[in-house]
Amino acid sequence: MRTDLQAVKVLVFDVFGSVVDWRGSIVRDLSSWGASRGIAADWEALALAWRSYYQPKMEAVRSGQRPWTLLDDLHRESLESLLPEFGLTYLSAEDLDHINRVWHRLDAWPDAISGLTRLKSRYVIGPLSNGNIALLANMAKHAGLPWDLSFSTEWFKAYKPMPESYLGVANAMRVKPSQVMLCACHNDDLRSARAVGLKTAFWARPTEYGAAQSKDFEATDAWDVVATDIRDLARQLLDESKH
Amino acid sequence: MRTDLQAVKVLVFDVFGSVVDWRGSIVRDLSSWGASRGIAADWEALALAWRSYYQPKMEAVRSGQRPWTLLDDLHRESLESLLPEFGLTYLSAEDLDHINRVWHRLDAWPDAISGLTRLKSRYVIGPLSNGNIALLANMAKHAGLPWDLSFSTEWFKAYKPMPESYLGVANAMRVKPSQVMLCACHNDDLRSARAVGLKTAFWARPTEYGAAQSKDFEATDAWDVVATDIRDLARQLLDESKH
Repeated sequence: MRTDLQAVKVLVFDVFGSVVDWRGSIVRDLSSWGASRGIAADWEALALAWRSYYQPKMEAVRSGQRPWTLLDDLHRESLESLLPEFGLTYLSAEDLDHINRVWHRLDAWPDAISGLTRLKSRYVIGPLSNGNIALLANMAKHAGLPWDLSFSTEWFKAYKPMPESYLGVANAMRVKPSQVMLCACHNDDLRSARAVGLKTAFWARPTEYGAAQSKDFEATDAWDVVATDIRDLARQLLDESKH
Repeated sequence: MRTDLQAVKVLVFDVFGSVVDWRGSIVRDLSSWGASRGIAADWEALALAWRSYYQPKMEAVRSGQRPWTLLDDLHRESLESLLPEFGLTYLSAEDLDHINRVWHRLDAWPDAISGLTRLKSRYVIGPLSNGNIALLANMAKHAGLPWDLSFSTEWFKAYKPMPESYLGVANAMRVKPSQVMLCACHNDDLRSARAVGLKTAFWARPTEYGAAQSKDFEATDAWDVVATDIRDLARQLLDESKH
């Protein structure tokens, strides 16, 4: 393995988009549930509109405009504000609870579980995600993600890309920032992690947003590792370590 | 399964003594290391003396007499104070680092991994331990403990048996305290967990302290589950759930 990566002990993963296919999972889950309940909607448009609230909602927390609020609760607010547009104002509170928890029921991309399982043999692996602790735990159970432990940013009360989120991992694991590698399909997340000293690994998820995708088709910077997916990341980190 | 246990979603485990054999592991690890380095000491007596500082050291933190301090650092202080008694004052700082990290290298009791692996199929499982985050992560890697996520009390900055530690799990998982079960071989830990609403499971580890053991040979209260070990706990919780 390259000398500069030999000291890496902990791999933390962006989750939404990088490890799980949120758009495809939401469409599959809600289409099936809607069909069984006679509820029709453009679930793909809903998923994309819902996700578009993600950064603005967190920014209100990051900026201090509002106190710490869990992603589950931000998701619920966003969902409620979308109901008129999608003709879903007739849904019950119980229906909305079920829909909101679709973020706990996301499926992994096909390469994720085998790649993570291989990486786990050498590294401590965990999500570093703005998903709250319960969301990430339920998602891991649903999708079979073999995390060692969870670095939900809920523990740090600091949403990515705040420096405290990335540095919180190094601090908790009592290692240097350069012994932690952020693994993600989003160049901006990696840029923020690198700025505070973490190592970085990138792969593209060119269908994350479907036809709406406008960026992150490729690495925009010289990240420490550029892979084709998580299985390839494992190949590069583990097989190269033999040389 | 008994009706009152059907709602349990999360099993959290006391670790030192309950899941890993700290005394036996320390004796094995340091005897072997000492032999290779020509360092002789009564490692069993050292392990017991070291552990006897555990509660008093944490009590200084719990009481507010000193600020939050990681168990790794409390362990190191205790170790240093024991060096004269054990004729080890000649050791280097590097040796002491190695010895202190023996708490990251503890082995599981023989029933633990198979029992936890079975329980993981139905429940979210994690340690609820006063071991710090890095200690528990390294121990899990060393011993092969299949945790879903870690509830080190470091996250809560509240050592057990403070209520905040037990309630922190329910809060993080967004469930009621009665949907969390503390699983442990120490009656006093279970008593504190029950006092704030958690469910409880007990099994004995009658050799935890070797000949020095004076308590916890049996359940002192009517805990929700009394098992013979973790494999039996899995049997009771999973097989009974078929009825």
